[in-house]
Amino acid sequence: MSDVSDWWRTSIIEMEPGRINLRGHPVQDLIGNVSFAQMIWLMVRGDMPSQAQAALFEAALVSAVDHGPQAPSIAAARMAVTCGLDLNNAMASAVNMLGDVHGGAGQQAVEMYHFVRSHSGDLGAALTDWQAEHGKILPGFGHRFHKPTDPRAPRLMALVREAAAQGVVDGGFADLAEGIQAWVSDQKGRPLAMNIDGATAVIYAELGFDAPLARGLFCLSRSVGILAHAWEQTQQGGRNKGPTPPSYRWTYDKP
Amino acid sequence: MSDVSDWWRTSIIEMEPGRINLRGHPVQDLIGNVSFAQMIWLMVRGDMPSQAQAALFEAALVSAVDHGPQAPSIAAARMAVTCGLDLNNAMASAVNMLGDVHGGAGQQAVEMYHFVRSHSGDLGAALTDWQAEHGKILPGFGHRFHKPTDPRAPRLMALVREAAAQGVVDGGFADLAEGIQAWVSDQKGRPLAMNIDGATAVIYAELGFDAPLARGLFCLSRSVGILAHAWEQTQQGGRNKGPTPPSYRWTYDKP
Amino acid sequence: MSDVSDWWRTSIIEMEPGRINLRGHPVQDLIGNVSFAQMIWLMVRGDMPSQAQAALFEAALVSAVDHGPQAPSIAAARMAVTCGLDLNNAMASAVNMLGDVHGGAGQQAVEMYHFVRSHSGDLGAALTDWQAEHGKILPGFGHRFHKPTDPRAPRLMALVREAAAQGVVDGGFADLAEGIQAWVSDQKGRPLAMNIDGATAVIYAELGFDAPLARGLFCLSRSVGILAHAWEQTQQGGRNKGPTPPSYRWTYDKP
Amino acid sequence: MSDVSDWWRTSIIEMEPGRINLRGHPVQDLIGNVSFAQMIWLMVRGDMPSQAQAALFEAALVSAVDHGPQAPSIAAARMAVTCGLDLNNAMASAVNMLGDVHGGAGQQAVEMYHFVRSHSGDLGAALTDWQAEHGKILPGFGHRFHKPTDPRAPRLMALVREAAAQGVVDGGFADLAEGIQAWVSDQKGRPLAMNIDGATAVIYAELGFDAPLARGLFCLSRSVGILAHAWEQTQQGGRNKGPTPPSYRWTYDKP
Repeated sequence: MSDVSDWWRTSIIEMEPGRINLRGHPVQDLIGNVSFAQMIWLMVRGDMPSQAQAALFEAALVSAVDHGPQAPSIAAARMAVTCGLDLNNAMASAVNMLGDVHGGAGQQAVEMYHFVRSHSGDLGAALTDWQAEHGKILPGFGHRFHKPTDPRAPRLMALVREAAAQGVVDGGFADLAEGIQAWVSDQKGRPLAMNIDGATAVIYAELGFDAPLARGLFCLSRSVGILAHAWEQTQQGGRNKGPTPPSYRWTYDKP
Repeated sequence: MSDVSDWWRTSIIEMEPGRINLRGHPVQDLIGNVSFAQMIWLMVRGDMPSQAQAALFEAALVSAVDHGPQAPSIAAARMAVTCGLDLNNAMASAVNMLGDVHGGAGQQAVEMYHFVRSHSGDLGAALTDWQAEHGKILPGFGHRFHKPTDPRAPRLMALVREAAAQGVVDGGFADLAEGIQAWVSDQKGRPLAMNIDGATAVIYAELGFDAPLARGLFCLSRSVGILAHAWEQTQQGGRNKGPTPPSYRWTYDKP
Repeated sequence: MSDVSDWWRTSIIEMEPGRINLRGHPVQDLIGNVSFAQMIWLMVRGDMPSQAQAALFEAALVSAVDHGPQAPSIAAARMAVTCGLDLNNAMASAVNMLGDVHGGAGQQAVEMYHFVRSHSGDLGAALTDWQAEHGKILPGFGHRFHKPTDPRAPRLMALVREAAAQGVVDGGFADLAEGIQAWVSDQKGRPLAMNIDGATAVIYAELGFDAPLARGLFCLSRSVGILAHAWEQTQQGGRNKGPTPPSYRWTYDKP
Repeated sequence: MSDVSDWWRTSIIEMEPGRINLRGHPVQDLIGNVSFAQMIWLMVRGDMPSQAQAALFEAALVSAVDHGPQAPSIAAARMAVTCGLDLNNAMASAVNMLGDVHGGAGQQAVEMYHFVRSHSGDLGAALTDWQAEHGKILPGFGHRFHKPTDPRAPRLMALVREAAAQGVVDGGFADLAEGIQAWVSDQKGRPLAMNIDGATAVIYAELGFDAPLARGLFCLSRSVGILAHAWEQTQQGGRNKGPTPPSYRWTYDKP
């Protein structure tokens, strides 16, 4: 019979009464000595980033914190509060919304970058193959609101270029993403924005994060905006605030 | 009829196509220039912390990231992954668990500190009154596992003392919390640990955070460990891992 | 050391390979022989209801399944689907919303009925005492949309009266709820509706359910509408549908 | 500019003050006249089932309500309650767990049945093709605990046979599922159980439900057990009950 203490196994944390080691570091040595961004890296990857790596990583985390109550996640957080939920439950309701369509584009973009990079053909052939399997929309490119430029992307890309110039990262994924942006704009016949997911995916790919972590890190980052909005709504009050005022309702489609 | 654009109101974010302002700052000015910890503070409070305030705040965020798969939240994240959930859904399942008992002690501790501070009687009278309303357990003090010392608390308290010595914070809540620890240890007749909730509550109270944010910030902090464990479990695989191996099951209580 | 198999204890289910007993009944004896409503009663209470009890209980379950996409829960379910969530995650996001304000009124109404019934004074004195502690809004009475009558309440009350006439229930909570409705309408100077929560609370109280189960059973009932809306939205498609069309946004309040 | 009332469209509910129509039926005509199972069918599909269809449907709903605290969903509900969550939040935490692996097997089984039925080759060829794409595990067949028989499946299959004899359903999916069970048992060289997902999938397929609804209906059904366990744990009390007693913990894997 297997021993129950074997049921969960982890390399993340080791514990005895009075002692907590996180990724091999006594917790008291981390507190006050590493930044929150470094701590995030350490916890999800196991190694400690350099200051320069951490700075680029931190820029990505800072960039994605909020996109307003029009986003389903932020709206959900605010609605939840007016239903009487505490902050943890409101945050959970909102983070749950960050599925394939809302929170998964960063992960898909990292996957696409790796797919294109390892493709035997040229960029156009690779992207055409990608679209054949996944559909026309290229994750990380285009924005229904910010046209023609999502202000977060150029700033993030400039930081990647700086980091590449200093040898912190390679820069290859930045080249690739800009190539994709040019190709898809050419296809569309109009300039298409690289969006927050496309740009943060460049950073996560440059820093060697596995694709699913682009989603997980987006969840961490957006949790900041979610908390801020949930708290603001808590202070505003309101009861059972649905998506629109009661006077608007919805359209009944007679079947 | 109220206009629908009035239905949600926020001072956090202002947006037009191509422009995103967060708390009055163009997002591109924040990216690469503020730390993730500063960004969290800015988003939830509206003002930018000084470097010294941000450092103390960051220590609290770093300290609470994980307490292992014995905690219901971390266990929930790992279980969720083996049920086939993506990282966002696993994180939501886990953060949802951070209710009054699991994630609310920090909030309750801040409330207790304010209650004691504004009480007309002495410390013992104040705490006795607190217990009369809320029960014997003082939030933030005692730990069922770390006896007699939770290694995170002394380190955090030392950082508060440093910050107080530099005039960053007042130090009054640190005095108060140590007074409570002495009082409750005296009542119990054995040394009782100040735990992570008691110590981070000192920091949040010193920095002027409203009590419910102690819970919200704990959720942000613990989300890091939650993500790390969810990702580790994803890599380990496993299907439908319940709390214990199938061989153990549960006890049937004949009614 | 406690044995791990003692960690979870239940009287609900007893299991061996090839055998499942629910509340003492072999599962194969229940399947095809009891209604879903009876099964719900059996599982949460442990005993099997009579046909007449089950019929009244079933009416309450049927009555609360949906109130449209204006309700935060239903809206959350539809939003979740457009974020790429599967039905289980969409349902969870929605049920999570059924907090004190959105899903808790039935529980509060049952508590209020018991409070009034056990109060030493008359109805007005009891309700005045209730309001002093809980605020002016009486849970289960008044509706911001259905004025002056919520069509579900009179039908449910008629069924309670029928059941009382047949000796299935006592009818005392029905008298009490109508007394409350008259009192609060008199206070307001206009007829105030008994709403779905007030009426189902009468049924749950008449049938002897503990107050928190009024919330739990509402969650079960509303889960039906949640599933229906989540599925309809799945078939409609749509991506990242926030609360309002992107053209509407929100109001920025300059701090 | 699109009108905001067009943003959500539904054929499920039509509402005016004092009037609620569900799928074209005034709500007061449904209450007390249709069973909860009929109401579920009506809401998710739009038409009213016959009594015989409803009876078979109801058997499926009854069969899947619980499989004990060893299941991650039920464990999550109980853990949630000990973290201080209300019943709605505990139920949400648990339903969220019913992902592809835990709650999706019914949906996958319906999909597999349709795949096999529309395959041009014989059963073995069809299943071999299925395995080539989806892996060796056939959804709905085999059980890690109930060997060789899951007691729920034979009872459900007998009810399908009765319904087929009465012309309520066709019976073709029942034949097909038993064929699959024989084939996979033959492949394994030992009798393999048809499990709850395989058997309820037969019913849902026979009754013409789309595959994703097999997951959605399982969520509704299991919500009953989830509520029962959450409520039982609420009455038991307990604080922060993790998966195993604190004395057991987990295994630390040195990296």
